[in-house]
Amino acid sequence: MQKKVYLCTLICFYMSRTEISTMGEFGLIKRLTKDIKPVQPSTQKAAGDDCAVMNFGKTKNLKSPRVLMTTDMLLEGVHFNLEYVPLKHLGYKAAVVNFSDIYAMNGTPTQITVGLGISKRFSVEEIEELYSGIRLACERYGVDLVGGDTCASMTGLTISITCLGVADEKDIVYRNGAKLNDLICVSGNLGTAYMGLQLLERELMVQRSTNYGNNPSTGETEGTSAFEGKEYLLERQLKPEARRDILEALRKAGVKPTAMMDISDGLSSELMHICSQSNVGCCIYEDKLPIDYQAAALAEEMNLNIVTCALNGGEDYELLFTCSLDDYEKLIPVEDLYIIGHITKPEYGCNLIGRNGEELALKAQGWNAFEN
Amino acid sequence: MQKKVYLCTLICFYMSRTEISTMGEFGLIKRLTKDIKPVQPSTQKAAGDDCAVMNFGKTKNLKSPRVLMTTDMLLEGVHFNLEYVPLKHLGYKAAVVNFSDIYAMNGTPTQITVGLGISKRFSVEEIEELYSGIRLACERYGVDLVGGDTCASMTGLTISITCLGVADEKDIVYRNGAKLNDLICVSGNLGTAYMGLQLLERELMVQRSTNYGNNPSTGETEGTSAFEGKEYLLERQLKPEARRDILEALRKAGVKPTAMMDISDGLSSELMHICSQSNVGCCIYEDKLPIDYQAAALAEEMNLNIVTCALNGGEDYELLFTCSLDDYEKLIPVEDLYIIGHITKPEYGCNLIGRNGEELALKAQGWNAFEN
Repeated sequence: MQKKVYLCTLICFYMSRTEISTMGEFGLIKRLTKDIKPVQPSTQKAAGDDCAVMNFGKTKNLKSPRVLMTTDMLLEGVHFNLEYVPLKHLGYKAAVVNFSDIYAMNGTPTQITVGLGISKRFSVEEIEELYSGIRLACERYGVDLVGGDTCASMTGLTISITCLGVADEKDIVYRNGAKLNDLICVSGNLGTAYMGLQLLERELMVQRSTNYGNNPSTGETEGTSAFEGKEYLLERQLKPEARRDILEALRKAGVKPTAMMDISDGLSSELMHICSQSNVGCCIYEDKLPIDYQAAALAEEMNLNIVTCALNGGEDYELLFTCSLDDYEKLIPVEDLYIIGHITKPEYGCNLIGRNGEELALKAQGWNAFEN
Repeated sequence: MQKKVYLCTLICFYMSRTEISTMGEFGLIKRLTKDIKPVQPSTQKAAGDDCAVMNFGKTKNLKSPRVLMTTDMLLEGVHFNLEYVPLKHLGYKAAVVNFSDIYAMNGTPTQITVGLGISKRFSVEEIEELYSGIRLACERYGVDLVGGDTCASMTGLTISITCLGVADEKDIVYRNGAKLNDLICVSGNLGTAYMGLQLLERELMVQRSTNYGNNPSTGETEGTSAFEGKEYLLERQLKPEARRDILEALRKAGVKPTAMMDISDGLSSELMHICSQSNVGCCIYEDKLPIDYQAAALAEEMNLNIVTCALNGGEDYELLFTCSLDDYEKLIPVEDLYIIGHITKPEYGCNLIGRNGEELALKAQGWNAFEN
């Protein structure tokens, strides 16, 4: 059976190669942005001028429209490794993580601008691959690509995306609204994206040692069966989705969260942000943490503690929110949503209750990239 | 007489050094953004949540408010050289070039987000220097810093700024509105920033050869007198300003440009953009090009053609616009503004009339960074 090859340095062998220098910056931008058709009524003028122009008076159904803005930077060698991240997936993810921030305020993403720093080792076709991922994400989430900046980089690939969104004033959910006795909820599952990363890193090591001394350009794909039965982990790492569906379900259920964030740095770190900004404490339960069985199995295999991964893994892009205890009944029918604990008095601190009833203080062990 | 030392690798000797790893990403962001007070009525919530929140209904005096958005990425080794660009100046410039894009649509910049990729070789104090430049620019232009993303870089310094602005629908000036017989105007002077860059590059070479074999950490500043009488050139390169004053003067004079851009890639390139998007041709006159005498003198000294520099130098951040011939009388009293030619039929193309009456087709010789 032919498995999908995720270790994607091979992709380039199937692509034709046009040097970026043959078309220059303006030619490249023209090619990347041609036939982009805005779908948001608020987009008045997209690429092609000094600025994009938006008319947020055109956002129907919003009595007091507010504009949301967020930005994320992805750097090669820090946030992604092109040895195993396909460019299209990378583009998709770079866009989606920004949408996720807008949803985390209970808003709707509407426009993005894309800044790219590209070194000469990339061909026009490869940058088109990257862009096709960004555009696919935009299509799926109904977001317009309205501008950007594309320039040469002397070093690695740099992607900087800024996203605008809209929300009615009364719908916006901040981080600082958690109240005593509120329920703490998360969507999906935790630690899965991190386990996907571990899997890819392990496989990369295997490939490197296999290729050592061989000619790596033969395009052989041995070893990729190591991904069999673990496709979901890869998907969570390589192609995360923003949980628009959860917000829609909450709206339908008539629940408005009191505080909300998306989980990019890990549950512990995000929960501590909500607690410190809301001036409350929290208590979550180890046995309530939603953990995927594939992730748990791989953690076992790799001798990792899956609870630690779930607490500190990061990149899940699931929603973490608090809501009133009165909404408990309304939450039950919402699919893929888990109540993991409750809000306490600030002096109680942020704690995890283990399976045997032991209490552990949460720590923001979120990755400090400046440390190593 | 003590001269200001622009070759600024020396700065670090006067600064204390705190490693970024000692405070982590969140600590750093907290330190950089503390006591930022929004001044724009449209800024509802700045840093500290998943997104910034803006209320553009609060922009007084605008009947049909539109939101403008632009983004610029600056990469070390491509857009700046830290051997001679002080970090504070770099921050200032990174912000101002974005404001310039908003002004080029006849809008007012209101908010920015700042994405930074920083390697370990920078200290907290150095990043504060960079940020102090960004914040100074924001203060001067009345713009709020509402968010950002700060992350570790494995390579050089990366700065990505996205700027929002507002304008009334009827005031926005696009690139595509130039009409037959319109006047072509530029503010300030051209090629000066480019000559400033040449001066800095030349001095860097001198310093390098002087320091060769010596201990470069002695902090000696010999050679800096090479900048005497040329301070204006350095200022234009290191600390450009956006021409808000010109737009105010035009408003006062009752002139609305028909098409407008800011000059970042060079007059030729920008003028060809306006002409192609407006489907017109143009004719400009060599003897009308505003050229600073310091720039002309240095070009002479360095054996460069100052007209070529003025046409293709880039980074001037002056305004280039077209306006109706009927506005001619109103333009005369506007200071620091120069009429350099007029719009022609498209079949005429884009041409420069030389001092001896010879006609030359304009070429967009703007820097193609992907070429070398």
